[in-house]
This record gives sequence, C-alpha cells and structure tokens, in this order.
Amino acid sequence: MQTLLERVSSPSDLKQLTMAQLRQLAGEIRDILVTVVAENGGHLAANLGVVELTLALHYVLESPRDKIVWDVGHQSYVHKMLTGRIKQIASLRTYGGLSGFPKSEESEHDAFDTGHSSTSISAGLGMALARDLMGDDFRVVAVIGDGALTGGMAFEALNHAGHTKTDLTVILNDNEMSISRNVGALSTYLSNLRADPAYFRRKEEIEGVLERIPGIGPNIRKAAVKVKDTLKYLVVPGMFFEELGFTYIGPIDGHNLEDLVSVFRKTKQMKGPVLLHVITQKGRGYEPACNHPDEFHGIGPFDVETGVPVQSKLKTYTQVFGDFMVERGSRDHRMVAITAAMASGTGLSRFAERFPERFFDVGICEQHAVTMAAGMARMGLRPVVAIYSTFLQRAYDQIVHDVCLQNLPVVFAIDRAGLVGEDGPTHHGVFDLSYLRHIPNLTVMAAADENELADMLDSAMDYEGPVAIRYPRGSGEGVPVSDRRRVIPRGQARVLREGKDILFLAVGRGVGLARRAATMLEDRGILATLVDARFIKPLDEQLLSELLRRFKKVVTVEENALQGGFGGAILELISDLGTGNQVLRIGVPDRFVEHGNTNILLESLRMDARSLVQRVVERWPGMGRPEGWRLLKFGEK
Amino acid sequence: MQTLLERVSSPSDLKQLTMAQLRQLAGEIRDILVTVVAENGGHLAANLGVVELTLALHYVLESPRDKIVWDVGHQSYVHKMLTGRIKQIASLRTYGGLSGFPKSEESEHDAFDTGHSSTSISAGLGMALARDLMGDDFRVVAVIGDGALTGGMAFEALNHAGHTKTDLTVILNDNEMSISRNVGALSTYLSNLRADPAYFRRKEEIEGVLERIPGIGPNIRKAAVKVKDTLKYLVVPGMFFEELGFTYIGPIDGHNLEDLVSVFRKTKQMKGPVLLHVITQKGRGYEPACNHPDEFHGIGPFDVETGVPVQSKLKTYTQVFGDFMVERGSRDHRMVAITAAMASGTGLSRFAERFPERFFDVGICEQHAVTMAAGMARMGLRPVVAIYSTFLQRAYDQIVHDVCLQNLPVVFAIDRAGLVGEDGPTHHGVFDLSYLRHIPNLTVMAAADENELADMLDSAMDYEGPVAIRYPRGSGEGVPVSDRRRVIPRGQARVLREGKDILFLAVGRGVGLARRAATMLEDRGILATLVDARFIKPLDEQLLSELLRRFKKVVTVEENALQGGFGGAILELISDLGTGNQVLRIGVPDRFVEHGNTNILLESLRMDARSLVQRVVERWPGMGRPEGWRLLKFGEK
Repeated sequence: MQTLLERVSSPSDLKQLTMAQLRQLAGEIRDILVTVVAENGGHLAANLGVVELTLALHYVLESPRDKIVWDVGHQSYVHKMLTGRIKQIASLRTYGGLSGFPKSEESEHDAFDTGHSSTSISAGLGMALARDLMGDDFRVVAVIGDGALTGGMAFEALNHAGHTKTDLTVILNDNEMSISRNVGALSTYLSNLRADPAYFRRKEEIEGVLERIPGIGPNIRKAAVKVKDTLKYLVVPGMFFEELGFTYIGPIDGHNLEDLVSVFRKTKQMKGPVLLHVITQKGRGYEPACNHPDEFHGIGPFDVETGVPVQSKLKTYTQVFGDFMVERGSRDHRMVAITAAMASGTGLSRFAERFPERFFDVGICEQHAVTMAAGMARMGLRPVVAIYSTFLQRAYDQIVHDVCLQNLPVVFAIDRAGLVGEDGPTHHGVFDLSYLRHIPNLTVMAAADENELADMLDSAMDYEGPVAIRYPRGSGEGVPVSDRRRVIPRGQARVLREGKDILFLAVGRGVGLARRAATMLEDRGILATLVDARFIKPLDEQLLSELLRRFKKVVTVEENALQGGFGGAILELISDLGTGNQVLRIGVPDRFVEHGNTNILLESLRMDARSLVQRVVERWPGMGRPEGWRLLKFGEK
Repeated sequence: MQTLLERVSSPSDLKQLTMAQLRQLAGEIRDILVTVVAENGGHLAANLGVVELTLALHYVLESPRDKIVWDVGHQSYVHKMLTGRIKQIASLRTYGGLSGFPKSEESEHDAFDTGHSSTSISAGLGMALARDLMGDDFRVVAVIGDGALTGGMAFEALNHAGHTKTDLTVILNDNEMSISRNVGALSTYLSNLRADPAYFRRKEEIEGVLERIPGIGPNIRKAAVKVKDTLKYLVVPGMFFEELGFTYIGPIDGHNLEDLVSVFRKTKQMKGPVLLHVITQKGRGYEPACNHPDEFHGIGPFDVETGVPVQSKLKTYTQVFGDFMVERGSRDHRMVAITAAMASGTGLSRFAERFPERFFDVGICEQHAVTMAAGMARMGLRPVVAIYSTFLQRAYDQIVHDVCLQNLPVVFAIDRAGLVGEDGPTHHGVFDLSYLRHIPNLTVMAAADENELADMLDSAMDYEGPVAIRYPRGSGEGVPVSDRRRVIPRGQARVLREGKDILFLAVGRGVGLARRAATMLEDRGILATLVDARFIKPLDEQLLSELLRRFKKVVTVEENALQGGFGGAILELISDLGTGNQVLRIGVPDRFVEHGNTNILLESLRMDARSLVQRVVERWPGMGRPEGWRLLKFGEK
C-alpha cells in the first residue's frame, strides 16, 4: 500500500490533506527518520522534534516562493522529505546522496545553505530586505533553536531586524536544550516564559485590555511615566524580544498541529518582525532519543530496538582528550576547560563532573569562549578551549587579538580537524592549519596518533604562549596510550622510518597515510624516510633543513587545504633554505569537499595511501622498479 | 608652575585630591588631549568624553589590583595619563612611543590589551571567574560603549555573566553613538532609558516599594502570575539587562564627578553582575569635536583653533571607493552597500545620502553584515560589504560558509589592508591575504593604485561568485582616476616594465615599492621585469608560468604576512610548475608589528624600496655592477 508520504511530492500536495492525515503523516515521517538515521547516522533528536513544526510550515507557506531558512540546518530532514526528496531519503548523508544540511544545489526549497549555528536571522533578514527593495511580497521565515539564539550573531541580527521593521518571522524552536544543557541567562529567561500559562496572546489585544483599566497605585504611576508603554511589561511575556523591536507570540505547543497551523496562518498576515516561540521536545516519538537527547544529537548508526550505537572498538581522539583532561586536571589546579555547547561532543563530560568549578560551557559562543579564556590566562590560569575545527573559525579574530597578540598561554584543543565524513563541507575541518599558521606567537601542532595527542596536550600545558593542537574525528590509529606522558619539546619533529630515495613529511592523520604509502612503495623498490613533523609552526628547522639537503624528492601529506597549509610551510622553508627540492604536496584541493564516508572522500581526493603511491610514481616516473617486481626473500623462488 | 596632573604619578596620588582639584585635573587633561591629538592624530572625541569617568574610576578603584578593561581601548588616553605615563604622553601613537590602545607590556595598569570592539565583558568575566577560583577579591570593571554593545560577542558575554552571578561591573559608556550614528533596536531602547527621569534606583529598593502595594486590577492580576517578578518591569528601567541577570543602575551623568564617585563607591560593594549606565558626551569640552564627533572619532593631525584637519592633497583609496560606489550605484540598481558602523570611515557617506534605501549600517556586527549580504545576494542583489581588513577577521567563518560555500556574488571592499601606521598591531591589515586565500570560490585582488581600485571594483561587480578587494589606508600613488572603467578579466595580471635580469611579482602597495626598487636597481645595472599580479587568487597562471620559466630570480612583494600570503601562493605555483626558481619573499615577518608612522615601519621591516634593493643585492651578490657604477649617457663624461 502506498503511504501518505509517498503521495507528497511537493509541499502543494500537503495542502490537500486533512488534519487527521497530517497527523498520520507525522507518524510515517518519524518511522522513516528513525530507520534512516539508525542506518546512516545523523541528527535524529532534532528532526524528531520538528516534525509537526515542519508539516505546519509547509502546510501554510508557499515554498519555494516563501523562504524558509533552517538555522544550523541539521533539523532539515523532515523538510527534505516534504519537498520532493522522499525517494532519496535512504541516501541521506552518504557519498553522492542527500546532504544532512540544506543545500540550494539540491532543491529550490532549500533557500539558504546552513551548517553552523546562529546565521538564519541574518540570512533571512537579508532576503527580506532584498524582497522589499525588489518590490516583492513573499514571506521569510527563520527557524532557530534556543541554543543557537545564544550565539552573538543571532543577537546582532535580532537587533538589526527589530530596527528595520521589515516583515520577517523568526520561529524560536525551544527544546530547552541546544546540544547539551543550555546555558546563560537567556535560557533561564526562556524557562520562565515556558512557565507562563498564557498560550497565544497578541500584544494589541492585551493593550486593549490595559487601556480599559482605571488609574493604578500612585507610587507605580509616578515611576511609570508612559503608562501604556510600561504597562505592557506586566502582561506581555517575551519582553526581551519586544525590547528588540519584535512582536512576541507564544509559547506555542510545537507538537499540536492545529495550533501551529492556526498561529502560522495568523502571523503570515502580520507586519514587521515577529518572533514565534514554539516549544518542542527533542527526540519526540522515539523513546531512546527522548531519554538521551544529548547522545541522539548527532549520532552514528544505532540499533533501532535499543537505541544502542554500533560502535567502533578503537578509542577515539575525543576520548583520549577527555581522559587527558581528567588526569591532568586532577594534578594541575590552574587548568580550566571551556567549551561552546559541546561538553559531550568534545569529550569534556567527565572533566565537568569531576571539576565542575573549573568547567565552563558558555553556550554556542565561540568568540566569547576564546576571549574569556584570554582573561583567565591573563590572571594565571591555564585554560583549555575545546572547539571543533570549523566552529573555531568563528573566533579567528579573538585568537589573533585576545590570545596571540598578548601571547597568553591558552591551549586550543581542535577536534574534528581534517575530513569528518558525513556532515560534509560545513564540518570538514580542512582550513585550520591555513587560518592559524600565519598568526604570530601561536604554536600549531597536529597529532598523528592517540598517544601523541596525549603527549602533545601535556607538553602544551607547559609551553609559554598559546598552542593549537588539531586531531581528527573518530577513531585513532589503534596505538595504545601510555600511562606516562613524554615531553615533546616545542618545535621537535620525529623520524619514523628511514629510506634513501624519498622524504615524506607528514602531519596528523597524514602520518598514517604516508606510513602505509611508504610500505607500499617499498614493494616498488622505493625507500622512503618518513617524518612526523608534529609541529606546523614552528617547524623543526634543524631536522628539516638537514633532511631537505639530503633528499631531492619531498612529499608533504596533510588533511588540510593545500593553500597556505603545512605543505605551504615546507615550501616557504625550502625557499628560505634555497635547497631547491622537488615537492609533491598531498592535501585537500581548492574546492569545498562534499559529504560522505571519509575513506571514500580520501579516495575521491586521491589522498588515500594507494593514491599517494600512484601520485609519487606519476610525479617521479623513473624512480624505483616496475610494479610487480620485488626482491625475492631468502629461500623463495 | 607644576600642574596638578604632573603630581599624579599613579592612581594613589589621585586619592589625596579634593573634588575641586579633580575638576581642575579634568580641565588640564582636556587641554593635553586636544594638544597631543592635534599633533599626533588619534581618537579625540572618545577620550574627551571619558575624562570624568576615568578620574572617578581611578579615584574609587585600586588599580592595578582592581582590573579595568577598556573595550576597543582607543578611549584609554586619560587612563594612561593617570597611571604614570603623563611624561610620555607627547609620544602617543608615534614609533617607539606610547600606544593609542591599552598594552599590558606598557603598564601593569593596562589589565587587558584591546583594539577591536565588544571584547571587554568576555575578558572581564574571564578575570572575575579566575579571581573566584583563586580565592581573591579584587574588582573587575569592563568599560564598554553603546556602539560596542551591539557586537554579538558582548551579548554572548552578558548572557554568560548574568548566568554565573560573579561580581563584575560593566560600565555602559553611552554617548548615543558609536562611531557613526548608532543603529539597531537596542539603540532605540537606550534612548528610552535616557529619557527616564529616574537617576539611581536599586532594584531591591523598588521591589520593597512594590511589596507594599495592595492587589491591582483583576485582569492584570490574572496574567501576572508571579506578581513580584512581573511588577518590577513597571518601575525598573534597564529591563533588558535585568532579564540577562544584571542589576541595572542608571542612567548616571557621566560628567558629574560627585555622582560618579558616589555611584562607583556603592557598586564596589555590590554582589553579582552590575551594569552601570553612564551618559557621556563625545568630544566634551572641545567644541569642534562636540559638533562633529564623527570626524573627531579617529582623526589625523588638525589645527587646534579651528579643528580643521591637516590633510594630504592626494586622493585616498577610501575616497576612490566612495566615488565608485556613487557612480556605479546610480546605474546599477542591484547594488547595495553594507557597513558595520563605519559609514564615514569606509567612504560610504555619500552613497548613504544618495541611496538611503540601498545602504545598510548594521552596527558593529561584522558577522551579521556578511551573512545578511549573503541572503541579499541569494535573492539577486549585488551587495558590497565594506569592512576594514582586521575587522573582517570577525566574519571569517561567515565568509567561508555563508558566502563562498554558496558561491554568492558578494564583493568585499577591504580598506586598511597592509600597515596602517599609528593604530598599531590591532589595526594593521596584514593577515587578510593569508586568511582569505585558501577559501574555495573566492577571488582575491589587491589594488596597486587608485585607478586600478576603481577598475577592480567595477569588474568585480560583474564576476560570478564572491570577490575580495584589498586596498591600503590613506593616500594612493597619485595616479589620476579615469572616468572610464576598464574591465579586468578575472585572473589577469599586467606587466608594468620589462628587464632581463630579475622578476618582481608584486601586489597592492607592494607594486609601488617594487617599481621604485626596480628603478634604483637599474642604476646598479640590474634590469627588472615588474608584474602587478592584481590577483592573489586565482593567479594569472598563463602569464606567470611563462615568466617563471624565463626568470630564475624572483622577488615577491606584498604588505601581508609572509606565511601563506601572496609569496606563498607563488611558491606553490612554482612547486606545481616545477620551474625551480630562486625566490626572495618580501612581506611582513612572523611577528606583530608595533605602531608608528607607516614609512618608519616599512623601513624597520626592511620593506621600503631602498631595503628591497639591498635585500636583492644581498640575496644575489653576483648580480649587476658595483654600486656607483652606471652607464654614461651619450655626451656625458
């Protein structure tokens, strides 16, 4: 039998359905969400929470004429199902399949590409102002979570939108937590609003009531000069948003389809900026996700019955970082940990439990996190700021000015560096070496394996000045982490193997790739020296200059953009030394990399070990022996 | 006769003075401010506005034990005079002299280095939290302007501080404008507060009053469930800040010393986060600055009597940009202009007057500016975002994600690229080529002269996809700007002179430097080819590869960090081509560059034309003829 969902090939098909059918559709959507994410991984809890919200939006609006901007965008799976992509939904987040985020290339219904938090109001305001200039009249709706609202740029946009008076609807999707427990005074404020018994009150209606009330107590009247303006505070919730120039409506039950449709219809006619406060529940309809929304925020494949993730046996870099923090934190009382709404994702949960007074989750506020760390370092603490590679992009200016210019000892623990796989271009951490390397005073390292990460972190805590350490998403190389930390002197590389023909200089996950490539090259009679550079800045000039004089042929390997990255640093060193080497740079080419399994992506970029071998042979065709030729081992025929 | 000011060698000397003496001191300080800034240039209006505020702060606090963080920091001249630096004040902003911003290296009273907007609350909160952890009890005060408060990270910090409940004083220095007219709903909100007749009311006092009032109208009571919490809105101004967890006090007259001292004394004892709303007047006490605070924001040397700036005759790049915008804007209705509180500084004032509906000043909100531009471009407009080089650092993530990932046609007009002189390290735009070059889809250009800037801007408006164009602060090369625009095809360099010995590849102001160096080298018999690369990305690979094959010796010249900049791009190209050139890279070395006259700085970095010649000769000692030797011209003896 055909499901209802299969009959919805565009939002216009929705409009023929009854409320009862919409509810049935919600059920079908939830089943598919759980099945697809259990198989492919993804952001389950968020999508389960916006099923009715998305249905009601598309029921009332006329997408693609009307524009919906999904903040962060990982809650757009339902939207994708309703906008002609239900047949491809099983391909979600796989190589060549649907993206887990809105992509204008994928559908005209994806009005704006998102991936990072707190951008939707700015983008939506830009669209609304463009519409006004062009004399058009479509609606613009930004859907933003309560967590994303803590990000400063959301406030910048609210403040500007309130000032412009343009027609713009901001839907605050309030699920009482962003990724981990929400933080900040605004969060408390929203809780108070939620406790308000009012359901749906228009400011105008309330003011009408107020005007009929005779004079009130003299003390109050004295203070309340402009009675009408002041009195509205009494009964209008959402004063915070009203002060910013928005009409506040809410809170609204985000799982009641009738209510949502009715409110959306009314607000569609309203003038000026409107903020709709909708209360939803993360994970709604799937018990494991309701009970553990944090774990089901961004999850890998899991078992549908139990909700238990299908996990790799290898330790992840994130776990190694978490272990290190607890271990060092227990003996180093200057250590504080700072995260931007990613306590669990960065591996800091245990540190937070053990040392709550030294743990700071600042909300989705990377800028504030970095400058606050600078303030702490200035007072003598040793802050560790744990932020993913691409999210740290938000704090580039603060790293330059507030940390590095003052040469303050802040350690940046940069998880998700390199390709991250299924989350795609907004999450691939392939720019950090390029955006950090030119900053004076900053030490930049990349961990080649789990044990090296622990040693780097421990060493960095004792360096003078700021340090950035990057490490990849997911499992390490399977190297056991020793209980004893080894000091890595600042700027010291290490030689991992020696061979006479060619020099591999690698960092981070590139070391493992180069090591495998070197082994394969041996079969072709090409003997490679392999250096784990460890430091992108400062380079180990002593070791490298000696090696660069010995080897003509050099291969650099990194999981970073080729422009201005580690390979670029090596070229600069070679130029300054005048050693005139021939260099093959392996890294991410000058384009945004799509989503998909990391190993597939590495192959597609010709960055996997096998491709490395091919590229070496292509670059220096005369080197080594023909393929298939190998030295016979003693006794072999 | 010794002035009072000369007797103040540290804040403790202040505490001996009477109120009358403090007022006399204020007068002396103002005289010196006007004299010094008239001579050296600087931020006059802001400093004239905080004379009493700074005096009262140091009168009450115990700096350096207590920490004062000056947001932006250009209002710290008075603070410097009062903290042992009065004798050096004439050296303000000169090479080797006092910085125009707080510098912890300069004095222990400069608790935190600032330069960019909206960081002070984050830094102050970090210090306060560190103090709590260390069991200390000093006060932390952040002084932030109303303009800086629109920056998102200030909101991130307020939200977090309100949540932590730590003892922190935020002084909102409200001068009713940031740099140009303030924008945003918050600005309107602050105006309403200023209109409030209340002077200094503590929430607790007010709540005491409220509790004595008997029940009020039934309609209101029904809605106001928690009467006490709700009623406070009636009479407590500053609700916005109260909602964020701050105790709001104000507004206070920022030029009344007695009031300021009394309020500061009271708040010194208060627990939790406090926001003091102080009203000041920019330019206070110097009429030209009061009348034109915008012009006196950051000003060059001027005549004290008239306030008229001592100006260069040459057209500035900023003026060329401003002219272009008006000219193109009148024939291209898709063009919109966006600035982040820098309408006048970026040269957009005339565009704003001519096309108010297509001009958007978003406040000090670079992140929002860029993403809003992306939203507009998505709808078919052609936004030009005019933001200084270092301020654009704030929007790095938004450039990557919201503009370049979607390949949207936004033009970034990047003024103040390269060394800016007296404003120093926080304002030298020497990183933009490095932080932009690795971003896929982005075209990156640098203007070598005024006419080229106009041509680049005009051409960029017709490119597909995003474009960044950088140009220096101040006067151009003296090249007349043609009335007719010439199209520069994307990625096309130009050869400016030809010579057989050496190849100069230069961008931006580096072109002029290289041209002068090439002329001087001719006297030594060294004949140079000079290329204005124009594009940092994409490079003109066709022209460059041909030249790189012809010339062994290559000099790259740029006003950008050597790491990952234009020279780095050339090394990458050479490596890919395998042409094996010898390259001398001229650019900013790997350290923060101090403040001072730009020409002095260029010399100190060995980047001026004369140094270029020396460095060429040092690098290739065998080339050319000995110094002094020159070809006799025909008929000469």
